[in-house]
Amino acid sequence: MSKTILLGHGSGGKLSNDLIKDLFVKYFSNDILKEQTDAAVIQVASKNLAFTTDSFVVDPIFFPGGDIGKLAVAGTVNDLAVSGSKPLFLSASFIIEEGFSLADLERIVKSMAQEAKVAGISIVTGDTKVVNRGKCDKVFINTSGVGGLLPKHINIGKGSNIQPGDKIIINGTIADHGMAVMAAREELSFTTDIKSDCACLNHLIGEALAVTDQIRFMRDATRGGLATVLCELAEKKNFGIEINEAALLVNENVRGMCELLGFDPLYVANEGKVVMVVGKKDAEKVLETLRKNELGQKAAIIGEVVNEHLGRAWLTTVIGGKRIIDMLAGEQLPRIC
Amino acid sequence: MSKTILLGHGSGGKLSNDLIKDLFVKYFSNDILKEQTDAAVIQVASKNLAFTTDSFVVDPIFFPGGDIGKLAVAGTVNDLAVSGSKPLFLSASFIIEEGFSLADLERIVKSMAQEAKVAGISIVTGDTKVVNRGKCDKVFINTSGVGGLLPKHINIGKGSNIQPGDKIIINGTIADHGMAVMAAREELSFTTDIKSDCACLNHLIGEALAVTDQIRFMRDATRGGLATVLCELAEKKNFGIEINEAALLVNENVRGMCELLGFDPLYVANEGKVVMVVGKKDAEKVLETLRKNELGQKAAIIGEVVNEHLGRAWLTTVIGGKRIIDMLAGEQLPRIC
Repeated sequence: MSKTILLGHGSGGKLSNDLIKDLFVKYFSNDILKEQTDAAVIQVASKNLAFTTDSFVVDPIFFPGGDIGKLAVAGTVNDLAVSGSKPLFLSASFIIEEGFSLADLERIVKSMAQEAKVAGISIVTGDTKVVNRGKCDKVFINTSGVGGLLPKHINIGKGSNIQPGDKIIINGTIADHGMAVMAAREELSFTTDIKSDCACLNHLIGEALAVTDQIRFMRDATRGGLATVLCELAEKKNFGIEINEAALLVNENVRGMCELLGFDPLYVANEGKVVMVVGKKDAEKVLETLRKNELGQKAAIIGEVVNEHLGRAWLTTVIGGKRIIDMLAGEQLPRIC
Repeated sequence: MSKTILLGHGSGGKLSNDLIKDLFVKYFSNDILKEQTDAAVIQVASKNLAFTTDSFVVDPIFFPGGDIGKLAVAGTVNDLAVSGSKPLFLSASFIIEEGFSLADLERIVKSMAQEAKVAGISIVTGDTKVVNRGKCDKVFINTSGVGGLLPKHINIGKGSNIQPGDKIIINGTIADHGMAVMAAREELSFTTDIKSDCACLNHLIGEALAVTDQIRFMRDATRGGLATVLCELAEKKNFGIEINEAALLVNENVRGMCELLGFDPLYVANEGKVVMVVGKKDAEKVLETLRKNELGQKAAIIGEVVNEHLGRAWLTTVIGGKRIIDMLAGEQLPRIC
């Protein structure tokens, strides 16, 4: 193979075939992908499926704690998991800039393969397009995914069973991903030890679903941060959401960087955090279960669903005041995922 | 809404929500998408599914006979259909350049909705990312798709039942799409009446599958053209493929442009052409069926699977010579899809 991506790698011809064989089939190694058919043939036992898609354009493509490949797998696995489904199959579609380093592409593909293994899913179908130099920025990756959904979990994604008294749980600190990516941008030349929390949450979520039937809603707090999840949740429903500021965990280095740059951690992206709404009686049990998993060691109950200020979410601050949580109006951090 | 795409439209916050509501949910109108959950919940009756993905980066985004939106729907619908499945659900993920015209985006989304209606499928989940000006070229679209697959059609995508004596059928003229896109490029300032053949083939293919169990393989001849399909087919299998040059149809204006620019129509992309390998005894029946559909009026038997030159495909030319069909080595036409 040549050392950089050529337009011919996107031609559908010989170079495309070499790339598929020497890179994608090699690392994503599974029998379905190996067939190289127009569409992968997959078997799914349940009639109810979850189906999702996400394109990843993160800049830079490598950052402490992850890279665009790991992010592309984890992001879609998490969208499937928070819908209550068991992630099964992923697609991977690459848009690559002519001249992109093949070594970097290999590093990304290896990282995707590694993360797929951790999650226990297969990447079964894909696509590669190459655009002329300057017509995209290095590499963009789309992953779409299919998960199997049990009938009893079918309403989790919608959150239609949420009730006042339910507890709000998150599995750890907030704002790590956004600040890790920000710090990795060359123009900032920041030196920090902040790491992205980028991770597949499907096993953690599966463990929680196994101990209770009281999980009423889940969402991963990515773009727009925890605040956006809370606003979207509150806006649709006939209840208010009260968050206890003191219960929100922010790593010290992340808090410092947020303060320096003027970001509110509530609005900064996470890539390994799930927000759960859990019936009161099982909230402690879910918390215990989450804490047993490495990805949930710092899980906490951060608030509850209440029967006032319907449609709003707010923080009860450490000194006892209330601060309304508003939808993000503009864009804080472009290309964070 | 503002008149152009802002970075905030990709923030996951208020502007993103407006875009989803005012554009995607409005035009792709269906109950599943309306839920705006992290993953769409879909019901599929069959246990065997086809799953595929494609990213579209065509330049220009509007061309005679179609646009990037129509192409994105038809391309994925066709990948599902040629695998023998019934296309059911699509995802749509947009990467948009800051400053892109909202009117153009609306035109594209309308076109996708229109094509989805023609195909009888639903666009049930999506994603929007916005990158800074100059970091992508206008708009790139990924569509992934899920189709239901009957057990009896499970080997069509692999072509594992192909036998010498089988006939090769294509549903019409070749090279229209590639030359239409080429002619639409500003730098050429060509005036032609060439139109892309971009179309969803699922109904046409469904009609053919209904009259025979002798369809042994199908593939849509997109990037790399008819030649690439034939090479890939021949390379994997224990047979040769003989194509009768005289049976290949090329529109007069397309042939003229190919000659002028030095392209071989065999290698030029199509977006509405399926290559079928059909058992001899039902080949005429399939041909008749295809010709009844508007998209198959010019269907023809163009060659057959033979028991010589195993692993090669070749043309028998009008004057009786033989010309080996080779895999495309470089890239003829970047960003044709």
